[in-house]
Amino acid sequence: KDLRIYRALSFVSIVGSVYVLFNMYRLAMGERVLLPNSKLHYALKLHVLCMSAQLLRGKEIAAGIREGIKRTIDELRSKHPSFRPHLTIVQVGNEQDSNVYINMKKKAGAEIGIEVQHVKLGNTATEHEVVTELTALNTDPGVHGVILQLPLATSEKIDADNCTNSISPLKDVDGLTDDNAGKLSRGVMTGFTPCTPRGVMHLIKETGINLSGKTAVVLGRSKIVGAPMRDLLIAHDATVTTCHSRTQNLPQIVSAADVLVVAIRKPQMVKGDWLKPGSVVIDCGINSIPDSSKKSGYRLVGDVDFDSARETAGHITPVPGGVGPMTVAMLMQATLDAALRCQGASLASWSLRLLPLNLQKPVPSDLDIAKHQRAKGIELLAAEIGLLPSEVEAYGRDKAKISLSVLDRIKERPNGSYVLITAITPTPLGEGKSTTTIGLSQALGAGMRRNCIACIRQPSQGPTFGIKGGAAGGGYSQVIPMETFNLHLTGDIHAVTAANNLLAAAVDVRYFHESTQSDEALFERLTTDKQNAKRFSDSQVRRLVRLGIEERDPLLLTPEEKRKFSRLDIDKDRIIWHRVVDISDRFLRQMTVGESPTEKGHTRQTQMDISVASEIMAVLSLSKNLSDLKDKLGRMVVAYSTAGQPVTADDIGMRGAMAVLLKDALNPNLMQTMEGTPVLVHCGPFANIAHGNSSVLADLIALKLVGEQGFVVTEAGFGADIGMEKFCDIKCRYSGLSPDCVVMVASVRALKMHGGGPAVISGKPLDSVYKEENLPLVETGCSNLCKQIENAKLFGIPVVVCINRFSTDTDAELEIARDQAIKAGAFTAVVSNHWAEGSKGGKDLAEAVMQAVQQPRSFKFLYPLEMSIKDKIRMIATKIYGAADIEVSPEVQSIIDGLTRDGMDKLPVCMAKTHLSLSHDPSLKGAPCGFVVPIRDIRPSAGAGFLFPLLGPIMTMPGLPTRPAFIDIDLDSETGEIFGLF
Amino acid sequence: KDLRIYRALSFVSIVGSVYVLFNMYRLAMGERVLLPNSKLHYALKLHVLCMSAQLLRGKEIAAGIREGIKRTIDELRSKHPSFRPHLTIVQVGNEQDSNVYINMKKKAGAEIGIEVQHVKLGNTATEHEVVTELTALNTDPGVHGVILQLPLATSEKIDADNCTNSISPLKDVDGLTDDNAGKLSRGVMTGFTPCTPRGVMHLIKETGINLSGKTAVVLGRSKIVGAPMRDLLIAHDATVTTCHSRTQNLPQIVSAADVLVVAIRKPQMVKGDWLKPGSVVIDCGINSIPDSSKKSGYRLVGDVDFDSARETAGHITPVPGGVGPMTVAMLMQATLDAALRCQGASLASWSLRLLPLNLQKPVPSDLDIAKHQRAKGIELLAAEIGLLPSEVEAYGRDKAKISLSVLDRIKERPNGSYVLITAITPTPLGEGKSTTTIGLSQALGAGMRRNCIACIRQPSQGPTFGIKGGAAGGGYSQVIPMETFNLHLTGDIHAVTAANNLLAAAVDVRYFHESTQSDEALFERLTTDKQNAKRFSDSQVRRLVRLGIEERDPLLLTPEEKRKFSRLDIDKDRIIWHRVVDISDRFLRQMTVGESPTEKGHTRQTQMDISVASEIMAVLSLSKNLSDLKDKLGRMVVAYSTAGQPVTADDIGMRGAMAVLLKDALNPNLMQTMEGTPVLVHCGPFANIAHGNSSVLADLIALKLVGEQGFVVTEAGFGADIGMEKFCDIKCRYSGLSPDCVVMVASVRALKMHGGGPAVISGKPLDSVYKEENLPLVETGCSNLCKQIENAKLFGIPVVVCINRFSTDTDAELEIARDQAIKAGAFTAVVSNHWAEGSKGGKDLAEAVMQAVQQPRSFKFLYPLEMSIKDKIRMIATKIYGAADIEVSPEVQSIIDGLTRDGMDKLPVCMAKTHLSLSHDPSLKGAPCGFVVPIRDIRPSAGAGFLFPLLGPIMTMPGLPTRPAFIDIDLDSETGEIFGLF
Repeated sequence: KDLRIYRALSFVSIVGSVYVLFNMYRLAMGERVLLPNSKLHYALKLHVLCMSAQLLRGKEIAAGIREGIKRTIDELRSKHPSFRPHLTIVQVGNEQDSNVYINMKKKAGAEIGIEVQHVKLGNTATEHEVVTELTALNTDPGVHGVILQLPLATSEKIDADNCTNSISPLKDVDGLTDDNAGKLSRGVMTGFTPCTPRGVMHLIKETGINLSGKTAVVLGRSKIVGAPMRDLLIAHDATVTTCHSRTQNLPQIVSAADVLVVAIRKPQMVKGDWLKPGSVVIDCGINSIPDSSKKSGYRLVGDVDFDSARETAGHITPVPGGVGPMTVAMLMQATLDAALRCQGASLASWSLRLLPLNLQKPVPSDLDIAKHQRAKGIELLAAEIGLLPSEVEAYGRDKAKISLSVLDRIKERPNGSYVLITAITPTPLGEGKSTTTIGLSQALGAGMRRNCIACIRQPSQGPTFGIKGGAAGGGYSQVIPMETFNLHLTGDIHAVTAANNLLAAAVDVRYFHESTQSDEALFERLTTDKQNAKRFSDSQVRRLVRLGIEERDPLLLTPEEKRKFSRLDIDKDRIIWHRVVDISDRFLRQMTVGESPTEKGHTRQTQMDISVASEIMAVLSLSKNLSDLKDKLGRMVVAYSTAGQPVTADDIGMRGAMAVLLKDALNPNLMQTMEGTPVLVHCGPFANIAHGNSSVLADLIALKLVGEQGFVVTEAGFGADIGMEKFCDIKCRYSGLSPDCVVMVASVRALKMHGGGPAVISGKPLDSVYKEENLPLVETGCSNLCKQIENAKLFGIPVVVCINRFSTDTDAELEIARDQAIKAGAFTAVVSNHWAEGSKGGKDLAEAVMQAVQQPRSFKFLYPLEMSIKDKIRMIATKIYGAADIEVSPEVQSIIDGLTRDGMDKLPVCMAKTHLSLSHDPSLKGAPCGFVVPIRDIRPSAGAGFLFPLLGPIMTMPGLPTRPAFIDIDLDSETGEIFGLF
Repeated sequence: KDLRIYRALSFVSIVGSVYVLFNMYRLAMGERVLLPNSKLHYALKLHVLCMSAQLLRGKEIAAGIREGIKRTIDELRSKHPSFRPHLTIVQVGNEQDSNVYINMKKKAGAEIGIEVQHVKLGNTATEHEVVTELTALNTDPGVHGVILQLPLATSEKIDADNCTNSISPLKDVDGLTDDNAGKLSRGVMTGFTPCTPRGVMHLIKETGINLSGKTAVVLGRSKIVGAPMRDLLIAHDATVTTCHSRTQNLPQIVSAADVLVVAIRKPQMVKGDWLKPGSVVIDCGINSIPDSSKKSGYRLVGDVDFDSARETAGHITPVPGGVGPMTVAMLMQATLDAALRCQGASLASWSLRLLPLNLQKPVPSDLDIAKHQRAKGIELLAAEIGLLPSEVEAYGRDKAKISLSVLDRIKERPNGSYVLITAITPTPLGEGKSTTTIGLSQALGAGMRRNCIACIRQPSQGPTFGIKGGAAGGGYSQVIPMETFNLHLTGDIHAVTAANNLLAAAVDVRYFHESTQSDEALFERLTTDKQNAKRFSDSQVRRLVRLGIEERDPLLLTPEEKRKFSRLDIDKDRIIWHRVVDISDRFLRQMTVGESPTEKGHTRQTQMDISVASEIMAVLSLSKNLSDLKDKLGRMVVAYSTAGQPVTADDIGMRGAMAVLLKDALNPNLMQTMEGTPVLVHCGPFANIAHGNSSVLADLIALKLVGEQGFVVTEAGFGADIGMEKFCDIKCRYSGLSPDCVVMVASVRALKMHGGGPAVISGKPLDSVYKEENLPLVETGCSNLCKQIENAKLFGIPVVVCINRFSTDTDAELEIARDQAIKAGAFTAVVSNHWAEGSKGGKDLAEAVMQAVQQPRSFKFLYPLEMSIKDKIRMIATKIYGAADIEVSPEVQSIIDGLTRDGMDKLPVCMAKTHLSLSHDPSLKGAPCGFVVPIRDIRPSAGAGFLFPLLGPIMTMPGLPTRPAFIDIDLDSETGEIFGLF
């Protein structure tokens, strides 16, 4: 068939030769010759082949490349609608040539679906301004490529290299930073390559020449063309000579070149008779020379004398229409590459630099283990898990804040599997939930190499300096550095304390000012701003709205409206907002304030709580964004008016100020495990008067970051009857998430206690029964485990039972527990040894979890919100605790009536109950039944969004023992090393 | 003369030819030929010149270079004894060749005064371990150069490029990072160059050849030799051809080379007949080939066939003894360069990226101005002022902590000039000290381009949300971003709050436990640690020492010793330690705690102060290092025993735990001014019950950082009678520093008030007298200015008076003030407009200060510490305030007696006096005299190290107004932008 065509074409070729000759000139100029049909076009090609050098028509080749880019983008966008490669071009001044180039780039981008943004700085821009602009673009997640258009046309002294080098190498699509240049010049092809040389390589490839061992000559040594061209040719195994203005015998050197690339900005300098016959000649020059035959008075020529060169060369690029269009196409390609890298990184599994464990037996102290593990830089970890630099604010070397903007960037990504760690009813010593959370995440992340993030609570400083010590996990399953974790971290709890106490001061002072001022004076002062203007603040306008007052000019309110507006009428005996400190300070459990004469006798009794008991901590942990945070803060009830109406934080005008104080605290904190896998530490609300889970935001971010094949492991406070129930009924309701699997932590020790073993008391030696085999105790105690498994199944979630191995446990004891668990409906039950062996010890658990999340599940809440307050409480008590019923006194009934009247009856309930029994009585172990749960009080956390019924005395301020932990805490004055934290 | 020598030598040459021939072989091998005398040596040289290529004896040349390095180091060390260039070589595994090379480097370093440290990682080292090690070295200020010895001999998969690239480009003395390679390959010669090519360039230079336009051929393209060699030759204008394993016609290409550099690891591959006659041949190869004539059985040869090559070449390097020794010498040179760069950076004046101001009239609001200025990255600023990355911990993008280790690194540097900003007795509106501090530092730093750091206090959040607003300066003289400055900053005040309140809780709980337990039980619990061991903690051992008990085994104490040890016997009515909050909360001014039944009736009345009034804030601000901090914390008196003995924080066992909480807070915070000059923000102790100055450590660091020609501008709270007096008598006594100049801030408004103008009240409109010209009021009011000038001169410091211009001031008014100031002995007096114009407006002030610090001065304290407490107080009252005398009641006298008995009478005194008058009576304006100052009470800050006499009611807890600032504070839910801070 080809033969026939050839014969036909030969004929056409002869016939059409006049036409062909006529077109030759236009073709040489690189214009796309429009032939009447493709056969004629083909003929032309053949003709040219016989007569002289074949033209390397960059314009056409570039069009094909751009077409390919467009196809790729279109395909990706059909799957990921938000995928949009974005290039920003920064121009300084208004150079005319630059304007032309930039317009070409914008046009090319527009045609193929690449956003090209043009940032123009004035012609007096300083280096700082340029660098600031570029740095801002580096941190903008929507921008994939950044180029600085050269030259920089400014009257200021400016170092273009400094400016270029301030572009992130990952966005440097022009390949001009030192970092990318260094890679290329040393033969490492993973960085970005300057676009013109990259385009030239494409053209050379089109000729079919194999560069290996060929002689290549590059005329020019510029950063943009000559130098990288040389590097690329060497990397493709050519023997390369670099020539430049000082080179002698240029024609002679050129005459040896199989491939010649010219970029010297000298019009038509290279002559045809210099060339090696049949060589490939690439002309990167573009010069305008006078030409009176043109309307414009000039024409564009290259650095090569085209007419003479084409007689000798085998292939040659025309000017224009040769290299030029390739440069733009390659820039588009590089931008797409950058965007794909960004997208790809977001889908791939991570390549973490893991920290090897140096396992020792017997297992050393937690602090010893933690101190001997050197953490990696937190910015490295952040990059490893696909966070952009703009999304990470490092606070020193060990911890970083993650910006909520990441959620928007990766919102289309599917969530990973969501694993909740909970436990049977624990002994007062705890059975290792935190350790299991960290250990499982190490086993999944480091052992199984799956993307995995652990989401945990930030510990209060109270226990750190008091009785319990830190909460970073234990053994070879810890968060490091534990000092950072257990001390201030990034100041979130301090921010909660500050916001909480500012609100407390504001409530008291409002009450005080109302008590001591007339309506008129009060209104006058409330509405006079710092500039002595009469003006309602935004918060005051919201109050006017709530009061139904439409007037917005303070001077025009009626006296009655002024009174309504000014007087919150706080009942000082019903101020329910407490001050807090993040310290165990028992003397603040009850106190009287306002005793200074300056407060004119307005004393009142109140209490201080530990900071993590602040409703603000619960609000922070349940908020989904800044706007949600503000709403929740504003809704918090701080007191009741003398008329019994709730007074909110927004009534006090504190919503905005608290949000300002909490702005940074809303961002989760990134740390790492002993094995270098990521941990998000965020919020730590109390597990009784609040829900005791780490933040919704950390989970939302983590689930997107790990991606579809990944895992997020998080923990709920206390036993499953408390933490898990609240996790499902409260946290999941607000987050919209639901767990794929529950890991129920148990220990032989706790099972024995539930089986009737002697009391386990913190700080006292354990009874010997806990150190010797005792199968009947274990078997009896499994009643608690079985009930908690049943509880998890009530929510429709598969349960993996994890029995944490202690050195004194016997195989027979462990076997009974496994057996009973599976009989009770657990998906599976494994013995885990992550405490002693890190990821290695947690292998079985990780495998079990990986299987469990594949199981079918149908998550459901325990109760609908529409249920009455009493029914919700009864539902939890009977279904989860195993109670016969609840008992509601007339006083509590009237509280319920009040809450219902105030519209708070549609909130979920957050039971404040002892964690030491399934019942309300800490002495009842195992799985008690038949008991009736007394409801002593019900309080609202209207901001956080739940009611908390009190089922017994709940301590919101711990005390310090006679020898608190702080006694042994110190640091080395020389090295700063901390001792005694545990 | 030369001719004669030549003739003589010719003769000698013939006679000695046998000897010469005998030595030829040895010479060719690069050994230093030992000739009997120098004439013979000369003859030999001539001989060789006639016969064949001249030898490039790297060994000798390298020795000369090493000698030069040694001389440079010796000279520098005579001036800067701590100057010691340091190279660390990291080796992975135990490769024999590497061991040899490393030993050569160690030997070379030892000979010339370069420390060479050898870090050896095991042969199972992972990439993470190598990177961790290198990263740690990057941040070690004592290490100037870091090299990773290749190859990496480990069984683990490891990417050598990743490892190398983790070396900081500034320490990469091997020049192998992408960053340095990129610079070199693009002709930028500011980075480090690999040592072998750098050595080769030296050898080529020795030949005298001018490379420009010459043909150079490089055989090899490795990262270490070939590629950088090519780059260097191109940078020196040679025409360079790169050849490698794929090159065809190698002999032909080589034959054109004027300069040939060979680095291909092929023994003797390049033959003499390939060479261009007279060419320079550099042989980088070193290969061992079998040679049965050698004892070792092998000999070393290069990549060039030496024997044939020397016949043709003009210059040639021998192997060994050619390139090899140059490599080591260049490594030493690069290490010296790195050390010099480090040293040089520390001496030179900074090259700051300044932020241009966009001055507008009328001057917009502070927040408006601040928001429109984009700060530069704080890490950039840190680098600009000569801080090493290891000395800086960025907290996000706007603020950073500076490590105290910088003080040790630059301890030998001379201090800059120390400028103290103080003021006349102010109106309640303030006269602009902070604004002047920032404005002057902008004028010196940005205007005059002198190294300048402003050291200022961190503001409390109380005023930010209350009445006064923030404290970041004003107008075009501000610290930015002001939100960061006015909110949590890096959490220092929160840390003070936490430490303060933990101590308070500890005091109360100790009192409680002592009240409720028997001696035996108390002792038992105090000495039983978490592992149930009987053990004294370190703090308890210190208590035993204080009690004179020598026994260290708890079981062996006598019952009496146990009682003495266990019982602090705190008098609950003399617990003087208060809890604090960083909030204006008037209801806490007096309160009763311990009212919960759990405290068993142990209630007591106490008060809470604002956090900045905590003694811990004063301690932090006066500490010189961690050890000093611990001592001061331990010495703080928290209560008295029933026997009247002081009970200290160390008695409570809280010294170490507080130091742990304050460890980071001890590091000053770096921020920047509106114009991009550096600001250290650190500590903010109260200016009445404490000394009201920013930290000693910030000043110590700043004075070294700015260096001899630089300036540190700092501020003292309130007027000169308070802030300046305390600065000189307290802060300077503890820091060992003294100011070179005082800037006395005044305003026409304040002068008018002192001249008898109507009261100025915050929040009320100003009387018209303050807005219209009134020369007599100004003139009379200058009495206060003159007295304050006199006060400064009492300390022997030159005074520059700075009159801050207000728009309503007239020239005549300003002129009177200037006149009076100079008459009163001011060095000079200037009108300053930095508020409206930044550095431009502060030009006159900056020039005046630059002159003033050149004046002779003789700083002296006002009183010696040996004076009695009463005399010290009297001295301040009479000399500074202008009082006739002081009045001490019998009660106060007995307090003085008690303090003297407790050994606290040698402390300086810190007067707690109103700041609104020179006297103790706020209504007395101008320069009152004849008054008698009543001393109401004297309290110890034994930790901070001063006594504070109370001269009137001092409020340590501010209140909130009816419309506090928080009412108008909010943030945008979408952007997070903060509104309403002012």
